[in-house]
Amino acid sequence: MSSPRWFQELLTVDTRGKGFTDITPRLRAVVSRAGLRIGQCLVFVRHTSASLVIQENADPAVLRDLERWMDEVVPVNRAWEHDDEGPDDMPAHARGALTRTSELIPISDGRLALGTWQAVYLWEHRAHPHRRELVVQVSGTD
Amino acid sequence: MSSPRWFQELLTVDTRGKGFTDITPRLRAVVSRAGLRIGQCLVFVRHTSASLVIQENADPAVLRDLERWMDEVVPVNRAWEHDDEGPDDMPAHARGALTRTSELIPISDGRLALGTWQAVYLWEHRAHPHRRELVVQVSGTD
Amino acid sequence: MSSPRWFQELLTVDTRGKGFTDITPRLRAVVSRAGLRIGQCLVFVRHTSASLVIQENADPAVLRDLERWMDEVVPVNRAWEHDDEGPDDMPAHARGALTRTSELIPISDGRLALGTWQAVYLWEHRAHPHRRELVVQVSGTD
Repeated sequence: MSSPRWFQELLTVDTRGKGFTDITPRLRAVVSRAGLRIGQCLVFVRHTSASLVIQENADPAVLRDLERWMDEVVPVNRAWEHDDEGPDDMPAHARGALTRTSELIPISDGRLALGTWQAVYLWEHRAHPHRRELVVQVSGTD
Repeated sequence: MSSPRWFQELLTVDTRGKGFTDITPRLRAVVSRAGLRIGQCLVFVRHTSASLVIQENADPAVLRDLERWMDEVVPVNRAWEHDDEGPDDMPAHARGALTRTSELIPISDGRLALGTWQAVYLWEHRAHPHRRELVVQVSGTD
Repeated sequence: MSSPRWFQELLTVDTRGKGFTDITPRLRAVVSRAGLRIGQCLVFVRHTSASLVIQENADPAVLRDLERWMDEVVPVNRAWEHDDEGPDDMPAHARGALTRTSELIPISDGRLALGTWQAVYLWEHRAHPHRRELVVQVSGTD
């Protein structure tokens, strides 16, 4: 019998300021609990100064390069009008606009269909540590 | 009884040239009509010179900063080859490539699971007003 | 009778180095095989140095402009730390971070609900030809 189903969990991630947190193991755990054979995993960040990217999981220099290069694309010391929440706040919104609020990953044979070198990262764009909320939703069928 | 369902509506948005239109109230209305408890809301823009972003809904200076900064990332007066439709057309495509053609938002307890400060914006990238078509699709279960 | 269903296919695309491959005809074929009336088509790239964009399908100059402009946003001859796999590898990751790992397109009346001028492109960011794997997943109902 094939009966489509929907599951949802709230994830909390404590970031350490600007940089990447690999959330792939936590997504795999949700997918495993859902017990579906085919479907999709939606990850949604409930913030506008942190975002998602799927990037290489092998060489940590890739993440260091992305962080430094993004600081050049979105400079902190540009004359931003919105600066009430600190000089790093508006650049964080701009970095969020360039990356993703949600990612959607297919599930094949009960597992995330990521490529060998792919990991899903929460990208914190604020300078200081933040507690971030993500909705993870798995849907699909047996 | 849990019976998964799919709903679709076409939204028309009249833009006033470059800038943001908050479409969150219209998405909430579609989600409310669909009457699902858990699921997702897909928004899809049927154009390549307007796009979507989820951004802060509190201080309008955030949107002004995004607009001015995006003009620096994608300059209008670069030597673009494609210029038959005006000098603002090719920059509009590039701005579209950097942002999103679709956004996907989870539905929890019958409501969009957006964060407190998140709104969904249609971002018009052309200089003049345009009529834009968006497909809004809600799927999920009771 | 309305019975939600999920289909999945693996697509292989041989790229010719930096540039765009229009995969819309292959997506239409999968959607046609699935035979659903309403739903969605998810495309997911299983790589971090190639990505997806939905862009204009009419004037090929648009794609040439996007390619040249992206080379300015993400310069190859910046001092990247990660360079073991060649000078084009880290820029390819950065270009991937700015564009999309997945695209999600609604299905209306059994067809992709793309706008008249929209096509779905696989964007190869490496200098040399690569074989790329994409997961295409169609879900929806009669």
